[in-house]
Amino acid sequence: MTRKLLISTALLAALPGLAFAEGEAAAHTGFILTSVLFLLGGVLVFWMAAGFAMLEAGLVRSKNVTMQLTKNIALFSIAAIMYWLAGYGIMYPGDWLIEGWLGPFFAVTSLDPVGVAADAVDVGYASGASDFFFQLMFCATTASIVSGTLAERIKLWPFLAFVVVLTGFIYPIEASWQWGGGWLSEAGFSDFAGSTLVHAAGGFAALAGVLILGPRIGKYKDGRTVPMPGSNLPLATLGTFILWLGWFGFNGGSQLAMGTISDVSDVARIFANTNMAAAAGAVVAMIMTQVMFKKVDLTMTLNGALAGLVSITAEPLAPSLFQALIIGGIGGAIVVFVVPLLDKLKIDDVVGAIPVHLVAGFWGTFIVAWTNTDASFGTQIMGFLAIGIFVFVVSFIFFAIIKATMGLRVSEEEEVNGLDTAELGMEAYPEFTNG
Amino acid sequence: MTRKLLISTALLAALPGLAFAEGEAAAHTGFILTSVLFLLGGVLVFWMAAGFAMLEAGLVRSKNVTMQLTKNIALFSIAAIMYWLAGYGIMYPGDWLIEGWLGPFFAVTSLDPVGVAADAVDVGYASGASDFFFQLMFCATTASIVSGTLAERIKLWPFLAFVVVLTGFIYPIEASWQWGGGWLSEAGFSDFAGSTLVHAAGGFAALAGVLILGPRIGKYKDGRTVPMPGSNLPLATLGTFILWLGWFGFNGGSQLAMGTISDVSDVARIFANTNMAAAAGAVVAMIMTQVMFKKVDLTMTLNGALAGLVSITAEPLAPSLFQALIIGGIGGAIVVFVVPLLDKLKIDDVVGAIPVHLVAGFWGTFIVAWTNTDASFGTQIMGFLAIGIFVFVVSFIFFAIIKATMGLRVSEEEEVNGLDTAELGMEAYPEFTNG
Amino acid sequence: MTRKLLISTALLAALPGLAFAEGEAAAHTGFILTSVLFLLGGVLVFWMAAGFAMLEAGLVRSKNVTMQLTKNIALFSIAAIMYWLAGYGIMYPGDWLIEGWLGPFFAVTSLDPVGVAADAVDVGYASGASDFFFQLMFCATTASIVSGTLAERIKLWPFLAFVVVLTGFIYPIEASWQWGGGWLSEAGFSDFAGSTLVHAAGGFAALAGVLILGPRIGKYKDGRTVPMPGSNLPLATLGTFILWLGWFGFNGGSQLAMGTISDVSDVARIFANTNMAAAAGAVVAMIMTQVMFKKVDLTMTLNGALAGLVSITAEPLAPSLFQALIIGGIGGAIVVFVVPLLDKLKIDDVVGAIPVHLVAGFWGTFIVAWTNTDASFGTQIMGFLAIGIFVFVVSFIFFAIIKATMGLRVSEEEEVNGLDTAELGMEAYPEFTNG
Repeated sequence: MTRKLLISTALLAALPGLAFAEGEAAAHTGFILTSVLFLLGGVLVFWMAAGFAMLEAGLVRSKNVTMQLTKNIALFSIAAIMYWLAGYGIMYPGDWLIEGWLGPFFAVTSLDPVGVAADAVDVGYASGASDFFFQLMFCATTASIVSGTLAERIKLWPFLAFVVVLTGFIYPIEASWQWGGGWLSEAGFSDFAGSTLVHAAGGFAALAGVLILGPRIGKYKDGRTVPMPGSNLPLATLGTFILWLGWFGFNGGSQLAMGTISDVSDVARIFANTNMAAAAGAVVAMIMTQVMFKKVDLTMTLNGALAGLVSITAEPLAPSLFQALIIGGIGGAIVVFVVPLLDKLKIDDVVGAIPVHLVAGFWGTFIVAWTNTDASFGTQIMGFLAIGIFVFVVSFIFFAIIKATMGLRVSEEEEVNGLDTAELGMEAYPEFTNG
Repeated sequence: MTRKLLISTALLAALPGLAFAEGEAAAHTGFILTSVLFLLGGVLVFWMAAGFAMLEAGLVRSKNVTMQLTKNIALFSIAAIMYWLAGYGIMYPGDWLIEGWLGPFFAVTSLDPVGVAADAVDVGYASGASDFFFQLMFCATTASIVSGTLAERIKLWPFLAFVVVLTGFIYPIEASWQWGGGWLSEAGFSDFAGSTLVHAAGGFAALAGVLILGPRIGKYKDGRTVPMPGSNLPLATLGTFILWLGWFGFNGGSQLAMGTISDVSDVARIFANTNMAAAAGAVVAMIMTQVMFKKVDLTMTLNGALAGLVSITAEPLAPSLFQALIIGGIGGAIVVFVVPLLDKLKIDDVVGAIPVHLVAGFWGTFIVAWTNTDASFGTQIMGFLAIGIFVFVVSFIFFAIIKATMGLRVSEEEEVNGLDTAELGMEAYPEFTNG
Repeated sequence: MTRKLLISTALLAALPGLAFAEGEAAAHTGFILTSVLFLLGGVLVFWMAAGFAMLEAGLVRSKNVTMQLTKNIALFSIAAIMYWLAGYGIMYPGDWLIEGWLGPFFAVTSLDPVGVAADAVDVGYASGASDFFFQLMFCATTASIVSGTLAERIKLWPFLAFVVVLTGFIYPIEASWQWGGGWLSEAGFSDFAGSTLVHAAGGFAALAGVLILGPRIGKYKDGRTVPMPGSNLPLATLGTFILWLGWFGFNGGSQLAMGTISDVSDVARIFANTNMAAAAGAVVAMIMTQVMFKKVDLTMTLNGALAGLVSITAEPLAPSLFQALIIGGIGGAIVVFVVPLLDKLKIDDVVGAIPVHLVAGFWGTFIVAWTNTDASFGTQIMGFLAIGIFVFVVSFIFFAIIKATMGLRVSEEEEVNGLDTAELGMEAYPEFTNG
């Protein structure tokens, strides 16, 4: 149940018992191959940071593109530092501050997990550094989700301050509840690769931010929603392809083992199911936009693929390909229904991150109980709500404090002129924009 | 000869004979490593879908970019579903409908190959799901080739209807002749990774489509060819780099095994040869455009690299690096000669897919007999023609039927205004285009 | 000390001694896994060629974008051919022309290293073709570094003539001094993955070129530096993410072995340190530009990440994560200080390659002695200077000869109008640029 916990004690104890030639050789190969899985998986999830950057840069207007790029490279870099400084130690606690609920802040181990790994954990089932590298990328992904929703009006440094808190503390705490062996994993919650822990968590943080921040100027006018089309759809499409690609590492790597025939076959099933869910999400969104709006909508199709991916993430192994198609397809449908719904509620989510990551994240988490007999619908809902409420409330408080102190939003004039000239003094496309 | 046939029966029978400790351990490691080859190869070939999307989006005019992106993400998603629903079962038939010629439609196994794999095939030499994942990507590539040629005037849904047929039936049928152990493989035809089965097949489908569709309005005027320059060359270059990258998976993965020193050394030779052929294709195209047109032509250089890649795909293992240079270099020369030739014939191939995939695909298939002593020039030509005629005729009939019924081409006014506003109501670069 | 030397003789001699069942099986698995490391590492470093292309295309003005793309695809292709034709044989000499200093030109082995490998070297510790593939990519990277600095005014063919010399001779000669087992490795110099051998070498070649070429017209006017902003910052950001991604292969692959628990754990440490250094470089550059210029500068932040990567490249294994943070962070600071400094010296480095690759390359090489007790500060400086002076002087002479004979720089009119129309007759964005 606690899939992402770094197994070390148990395996360490068991290894001497395996001390005959063949068993040891197999264990060695298994150690190497599982480390390779973490490294390749981590590299693919790293690549998702580029995917989010391109997706968001393509979906904002050109006057805010430099800012969106800056936020994305900055948030990844901050996540890399904060997860090392605090997050990893909180997420995988040796000694809990509060058993099952809160790990130690700034634990000594977290100051140099790699060094520690080389001494102790490496004798376990995979290189400690490879595990750290892989887990770090999930933390960064959570932050990437937030930046799109709040685009085109949030100030740079206040946003980055939130990233510090999210990646150093909020994400690691809620993730420790499940993947760190905490109370949620004890309660029987199931979230294979993070539909809730990563995607819905990012979505709830985004929701808290957007409620405090409010919609962009001119977005809702006289009861109508004014379209603010993205400036570069090839970039948005590239970003989606990058995310789709990276997701093979996200879900496949979460098998957390590749040293046996059984494990590599599971990884392969996960790859096939992940791909199917994405394809189904895209096709359903495409058909539905044709039927409902009489025209295929590319950005909804892209978000449909992403929603399919989020939907399968909570359980990419158990479903058959047909079940993966259903799960992902409904994810795609969610996008088409929820995007207009949010606009009706005047929740201005620039890139559609809330439908894709929060709502499809709920769907994916809930439906685990359909294909995984170890899970129950009730526990799935409970776990989703527990993490959702925690992330939402803490994020809301934090955004409110920032708003009251250093200010969260650029001035009206700066927003109208674009954040690029106002905050950064640098245009993304100085020679292209017409007027 | 039938390199891509999923070996299972033979190996299954042989395995018990290997039932001593060391042999078994090696078999296990081999199973894992070959599955890893399929997964990584598949991921790289998946990435080629993004490459085609970027290449084509960069080479069409900005008024048709959203449509080209939509077609590319849609065709991949449809391929993913159709290859599962019908294609895989047709391509690797347990029981043929017509021995060596036609596999079963909608075979039960194809409804959940992954599930089946877990029970039976997995005991073979690699995870069944990994094989499915890898093969699926080749099917999708075939469809990607078609979309570029027909760009800027074909309607969305008729094109997607063709993709359904191509990926569910046309490609799997012709591929079964060779990689499914059918009559072509019995006849001694040789196509390691698909110069004919994938690339020329896609090219023939594109040729059928373009002949029925006709050239874009204004392309051929008073006996002259009017240039219609691509709107975004960095995108086209990015797409080419992505395709080049993905090709390592395309050709390297087609070794279909990585569990022994011999196999991994072969994979490495394939990587080196693939890279050399691409480089030679680019350099030759660059030099030839300088000599013939007095100016280096970037899009021909990009297509030269791609033609080099297509050329080496039928036999990336047997050639020395010097032979790979020759094979790829001639591929690059083909582009420079065939692109103007097609224009003379008023065949309006927007991105140059026919020179790159069909003509260089022929060259690559033909020249196999130079370096692979198991192949003969005659059989290579025969196989190429067999697949070419089959794909061309079936595609031609299908396009003709669509044209006669639902219509294939947008109206003249829509074509002039661009497909993006007419069919999709969404511009790719709403803020950039001047006028 | 000579990390990149292809070990074959020693291992070949030792292998018979290991001729008992288990040892042999482990050796086989090790051979495969190390070959896989070379192939995956090589693929990732190949991808860096795309990263440089996007970074540079994004940072030049739109009138020179097609040229920059052409140079990048051409230089990679030329490197692929020249490294095969001459470079590989020079870099890893069986018989030196001058012991420790100069390998044989056009050695027979270099004409078909793959073929040779299959016979002899493959019995060593990894596939010879995989090693060739991996090493080739480092050679190409060196050339990629040069093209950015000299952008927007150097002619196409003279630049490519320099690439021929750089990738066929200059790089292989200096690299043979260290990685080929030459005099520098004997002297105790330490450069794990090439802060000096690749990055500073590329930087020195760029410096030689820019001194002869001079600044762009209008760059320095009345004692002031005129900003010439890049035309497409999303491309530049994408390029940076690609380079960051590829660097995992660059540094991780340079472990040159992945067949044991110890080696894969080292590869994992390298991944984690590489990521940390890049993140620290980005964060430091971001904070410093905020403090010094009151506005975060995106291009400096991107270059800060790259400088962090270059800084950790000379020793990505020994540092703790905290040390990696310090090393990379100082790399980021270097960018912020050196970019304006170069402008004061009227050295017009279009993309900032000299600060990033040469200066941060020095920093990374120097600081090796902090974390790696086998290295000394003195030897590190000596090695850096030896390679720097050699590359600079030879490049300078070559550029001077070209300038005196075929000419190096486009005419004033061509430069003002842009190289794309003047030299190539093809615009990168024919529909976007306003005026």
